[in-house]
Amino acid sequence: MSWSSPIKNRAELAVSEMHDHLLQVLEEGLRAADPRLAVKRFVSREGDEVRVGDERAVVRGLIHAVGFGKASREMARGLLEALGDIAGGVVISPEGDGSIGPIKVLKGDHPVPRENTLRSSRELLNYLEREVKENDIVFVLISGGGSALFEVPAPGVTLDDIAFVTRELLRRGADIVELNAVRKHLSSVKGGQLLRYIRARRVFSLIISDVVEDRLDTIASGPTAPDETTYRDAYEVLVRRGLWSEVPPGVRKRIEDGLKGLAPETVKPGDPILNKVRNIIVASNTVSLEAMSRKARELGYEPIILSPYVVGEAREVGKVLAAVIKSVRRLGYPAKPPLAILAGGETTVTVRGDGVGGRNQELCLSIAIEISGLDNVVAGCMGSDGIDGVSPAAGAIVDGGLASEAMARGLNPREYLDRNDSYTFFSKLGRAIITGYTGTNVNDLFTALVR
Amino acid sequence: MSWSSPIKNRAELAVSEMHDHLLQVLEEGLRAADPRLAVKRFVSREGDEVRVGDERAVVRGLIHAVGFGKASREMARGLLEALGDIAGGVVISPEGDGSIGPIKVLKGDHPVPRENTLRSSRELLNYLEREVKENDIVFVLISGGGSALFEVPAPGVTLDDIAFVTRELLRRGADIVELNAVRKHLSSVKGGQLLRYIRARRVFSLIISDVVEDRLDTIASGPTAPDETTYRDAYEVLVRRGLWSEVPPGVRKRIEDGLKGLAPETVKPGDPILNKVRNIIVASNTVSLEAMSRKARELGYEPIILSPYVVGEAREVGKVLAAVIKSVRRLGYPAKPPLAILAGGETTVTVRGDGVGGRNQELCLSIAIEISGLDNVVAGCMGSDGIDGVSPAAGAIVDGGLASEAMARGLNPREYLDRNDSYTFFSKLGRAIITGYTGTNVNDLFTALVR
Repeated sequence: MSWSSPIKNRAELAVSEMHDHLLQVLEEGLRAADPRLAVKRFVSREGDEVRVGDERAVVRGLIHAVGFGKASREMARGLLEALGDIAGGVVISPEGDGSIGPIKVLKGDHPVPRENTLRSSRELLNYLEREVKENDIVFVLISGGGSALFEVPAPGVTLDDIAFVTRELLRRGADIVELNAVRKHLSSVKGGQLLRYIRARRVFSLIISDVVEDRLDTIASGPTAPDETTYRDAYEVLVRRGLWSEVPPGVRKRIEDGLKGLAPETVKPGDPILNKVRNIIVASNTVSLEAMSRKARELGYEPIILSPYVVGEAREVGKVLAAVIKSVRRLGYPAKPPLAILAGGETTVTVRGDGVGGRNQELCLSIAIEISGLDNVVAGCMGSDGIDGVSPAAGAIVDGGLASEAMARGLNPREYLDRNDSYTFFSKLGRAIITGYTGTNVNDLFTALVR
Repeated sequence: MSWSSPIKNRAELAVSEMHDHLLQVLEEGLRAADPRLAVKRFVSREGDEVRVGDERAVVRGLIHAVGFGKASREMARGLLEALGDIAGGVVISPEGDGSIGPIKVLKGDHPVPRENTLRSSRELLNYLEREVKENDIVFVLISGGGSALFEVPAPGVTLDDIAFVTRELLRRGADIVELNAVRKHLSSVKGGQLLRYIRARRVFSLIISDVVEDRLDTIASGPTAPDETTYRDAYEVLVRRGLWSEVPPGVRKRIEDGLKGLAPETVKPGDPILNKVRNIIVASNTVSLEAMSRKARELGYEPIILSPYVVGEAREVGKVLAAVIKSVRRLGYPAKPPLAILAGGETTVTVRGDGVGGRNQELCLSIAIEISGLDNVVAGCMGSDGIDGVSPAAGAIVDGGLASEAMARGLNPREYLDRNDSYTFFSKLGRAIITGYTGTNVNDLFTALVR
């Protein structure tokens, strides 16, 4: 992702000063989520001290870097640039090509962990056990996809067992909390257990959150974070979801052993092993919204962050955001223009039609319909990973004139929305935001500017 | 509605100080929407001057009051109390019993206008034509339901014709804008035309808005407000919706005459007849939110009005409001606690289950699920008319502990939500807000308090 123009069709989209401002604000959100830059913002070296955010650590031994996730490669690059000198390490990425300086980049599988993930994860653990000494400093670089790219099943459990249990639980309506309670207890590394392989007394986990609400125990299944769930919880989920009688023998044995205290628990809050680790979120939806907020102010718009936790059906969320836009424009609530309304999260789309689109573009299309006729309003929404649903776009940009412009060209916005065909709509009107894959993910970013 | 306790089960609901505060804020919203009090806030008499909001009018002749809508009776009572002396008038209400001082209260039909509406509307027009002189002042009291309670079809058109066209347009997916374009051109009084029956040079329309976004041309079909739509628009809607070939002969003739300039148009913006009227919204969702906002501040919560224009599927809107609540609580965005988050509008429910509930309670149930586990948060939502969907409640009140309290009692919130059974859920937990019919309607009122 190039910072001169992460949005490839920028010139086409910047049809007015307000549109240009909106693009600048969205770009700032992407920049804040850039893995290399995010790591460099938090880490620096001064003499024999390493600074990580507000923390300092005296370098008494070597510095190592391990990591996993779609952004691990670029995070490793940022860390190397920030520190200048790293002894070595292993990071696992979906591509896995070669190395970043002394750090090996290995290939893992995504979204379902298979042989690559297993082989690379073992090599990562071997590196830690072989190379890391007590006085060393270890950086763990964690980003989205890390849960699949890094996994070593518990003894007696196979990747196929985990895949089976995951699939069946999802099919029976288990939520992410239930799913994680089970999966962490079938793993040797999730739920804080990676820490048991790290001999060093100082561990910094630098985390890019792709999970709405940024729960440390959820991002990449929390390999360096405490886990509150127990074997008892895992067992109860399997029973409640009617899966207990069907689980593979290795899974059954692991859980039964755990219930009897014969298998190690995940790392619980208060465990002294946690004293050596600092989990630091270096990029997240909130971090991006805060950066966007500063940029908006710089451009002359008072910023208001509604929430980085927005979820729900995209077209309905769009209606609520449009209600806020209209209220600002007509009544000065929640605040008077010039105002930048910022929000983030991850909406969903219940697909009913056969069109080409994504949640961000569907949200924008809903807004375009709702704000039709309103002047001095521009709104945009995009996936920070650059990929919106099944479309080649990242999102879209709309204003109060778009719906009638579309109608005049024979494109009925409601019909495109009904068909879930938001990308076709926006690409015909030249309003789809195109970035390509950005190499990061902090979920979706929304901005509306109101004058 | 008694102002000592509009919420009948107040004692049961006020389980903590925050709950009590929330109820006080909601009650303040109801109070601001009270028809009698709303009129009295805007109108007063000093000597030979009548004050209406910022306007003054010297009383040179008599003062008359006409009106229609579910709240017209109480509005008339408020007007009489404010002015002390009114020559006479006619208001049309669904009950229509007797009189308020010198003002006759006649019966109209709702939601479909029939003989009562026709007879009472003619009597209202007769009163105006017979009693009102140029130097008199006329108050027109307009509230929700006015469109059905007050109607005189255009010459040659019958109420049955209008009912047929309305039903068929709705069945074919016409929206409210299309519907009104047609109906106003089949009426002798809608779309500003009532003004043609009023000889007086000073007319004050006092309006309680039950329409989201408060469009004067939409509330009660805008009998004293300009109408931008034309016979051409009405014709095009009927053609576009495939109804033109089927309309009754009277409707066809009226529209055809209109297209040829042989039938009077509705009152257009800029028409000099509008100079004599001031349309004043005395109660609305916004007015209530502003009152609630003052009460919240008084109770120690900084208020933020998100929007009075919120629409969308109730459970999805609930997720967005919950996202804001969580953001305030954890991050201090959009503002730090203690905070009162206020919003209004009218959500919808797509009914899939066979439960008993309403949009306000469904929204609350969605919030209860989303904020589960969060402390120092209370939220509530209610219909200002006191009637939420098909339930006997007005709305509900929730907090971060409710979902687990429910689970502990064997009530799974998600299952109740799936069945659209929100009232059953809340009544079992003693959290349904019960007011009975409040006699007013400014749509739905939402508040969350966060400490």
